[in-house]
Amino acid sequence: MKETTDIDILVSEVGPRDGLQSVKATLPTELKLEWISALAGAGLREIEVGSFVSAKLLPQMADAAEVVAHALTLPGLFVTALVPNLRGAEAAFSAGIHKITLPISVSEQHSLSNIRKTHAQLLEEVQAIVALRNERFPQVQIEAGLSTAFGCTLQGVVSDDETMAFAVKMAELGVDEVGLSDTVGYANPTQVRRLFTRLFRELGPLAGSAHFHNTRGQGLANVVAALEAGVKTFDGSQGGLGGCPYAPGASGNIVTEDLVYLLESMGLRTGVDIDRLVAAREVLRRGLPAEPLYGFIPDAGVGKNFTYAREAV
Amino acid sequence: MKETTDIDILVSEVGPRDGLQSVKATLPTELKLEWISALAGAGLREIEVGSFVSAKLLPQMADAAEVVAHALTLPGLFVTALVPNLRGAEAAFSAGIHKITLPISVSEQHSLSNIRKTHAQLLEEVQAIVALRNERFPQVQIEAGLSTAFGCTLQGVVSDDETMAFAVKMAELGVDEVGLSDTVGYANPTQVRRLFTRLFRELGPLAGSAHFHNTRGQGLANVVAALEAGVKTFDGSQGGLGGCPYAPGASGNIVTEDLVYLLESMGLRTGVDIDRLVAAREVLRRGLPAEPLYGFIPDAGVGKNFTYAREAV
Repeated sequence: MKETTDIDILVSEVGPRDGLQSVKATLPTELKLEWISALAGAGLREIEVGSFVSAKLLPQMADAAEVVAHALTLPGLFVTALVPNLRGAEAAFSAGIHKITLPISVSEQHSLSNIRKTHAQLLEEVQAIVALRNERFPQVQIEAGLSTAFGCTLQGVVSDDETMAFAVKMAELGVDEVGLSDTVGYANPTQVRRLFTRLFRELGPLAGSAHFHNTRGQGLANVVAALEAGVKTFDGSQGGLGGCPYAPGASGNIVTEDLVYLLESMGLRTGVDIDRLVAAREVLRRGLPAEPLYGFIPDAGVGKNFTYAREAV
Repeated sequence: MKETTDIDILVSEVGPRDGLQSVKATLPTELKLEWISALAGAGLREIEVGSFVSAKLLPQMADAAEVVAHALTLPGLFVTALVPNLRGAEAAFSAGIHKITLPISVSEQHSLSNIRKTHAQLLEEVQAIVALRNERFPQVQIEAGLSTAFGCTLQGVVSDDETMAFAVKMAELGVDEVGLSDTVGYANPTQVRRLFTRLFRELGPLAGSAHFHNTRGQGLANVVAALEAGVKTFDGSQGGLGGCPYAPGASGNIVTEDLVYLLESMGLRTGVDIDRLVAAREVLRRGLPAEPLYGFIPDAGVGKNFTYAREAV
């Protein structure tokens, strides 16, 4: 998705995956499709539409193939999905996905509790997935999303060296992109700037996206630091959907609406229309009436001094 | 307050002034004193304890002199107050204040609606206040806080040149420090970096603090940019107290608790103990039970990877 030249930053919407897998209620498939259409209609170029996991584990994601099929009909949309293992990869590839993201926990404790795999088992799985892609689905991109790259609720500190060792390993295994995820909201701007700078230095064009959570309110502050390090792709979730295991009132992922406002007001083109993006929340309100939606821009609106980056002189 | 060497950044708490003047309920004087003591006890070195304005206009601030008298008994605390005119300045000086902050609206429309003064009248008032200080209270510091420095709900865009012209004018009139305030939550990090860089270049040691609101969720993102421009003093408000005329769930000022966490996790010493700071909220809950308190850190806690800057290797 990096070939576009009419935007400066790619905002990758992960609400249909990261958001919906974290909420208790299930958004009916029909509304999921309507929501994704509305998000794409607002100008989002890339949406992580679901997760190819066991329907027993995550019943909200049981309709992943159907959702991908719909998303593929939306003009210009780059369709991605999360895939934790070879079986999921095969299903996602067969569904016609453009890109898969592999969750790779830098913290082995997190890996064991999240996808029940040791690091050795995880690396084998990545190898098998890349081999499958290379052999039968060469057009599909593979991104490794390094979870707990900035710290882990189980392990505590995760060192830069640990994260970078995994990043390099992933590049060696043949993935196309390596992103860094602050899975638990532990990152700070100093660390973000330092680690992404190193990622770009060591991985060059394979250095990928930033995925921040807002558990401690530091999400957009970390975006500023990542921008300085050269990051061009940011994950966001509409309404900060996903909640947070810790904090009432604290969103999970950074809120796409606030992220787009930040970027555009900084003079960085995202291609997203804020009014249409905010309007897309209506589908969520209808489908998940009990779920709180976060974000400042939907309530406060843009400032009277606001200009889209494309219109700025 | 810039002579200290055991901290890197001065967090200036404005809750007792900016916060309390915005809430409808009045915090009884006794609890105000208890709160200020708790804030100082948590390690905050500077607190804006009130506003010397007409008690008719702001009954919550009628006890300003009594509050200053109490704050002056707290060891090591630098006591400041907001002062909108000469009469307020005389009262604040007589109360023994260490520093006054003059709210100077760069937008004339805002000036007229906020303190009912044209720019010409405002400049005359500043001149008179500086003269009074020089003549009878030479030990008191005067800061000009440039309101609407980044934009105005009435005027819309406020240009860098407009803001800088006022900054230079204030320096010429003899104030000791010029800070920039994003009164209405319009600032973005690009603008913040650009404008503070210019402030430091043109004003040198007179360049002062950053005062950000979080109306659009961009407060801490703006702090990151201001840090890069060299800002060493940031205003914050406990619990984001002050609310916001626009957004339910949107705080007014940036939340001191989250600000301190940001700075410390970035390796910048503030001298503030986060646990004690969070504990100080209890006084507000008691005194203003109906007032929502914002902030992520009080609910989420610090991360397991967190270390105070002073303890970091």
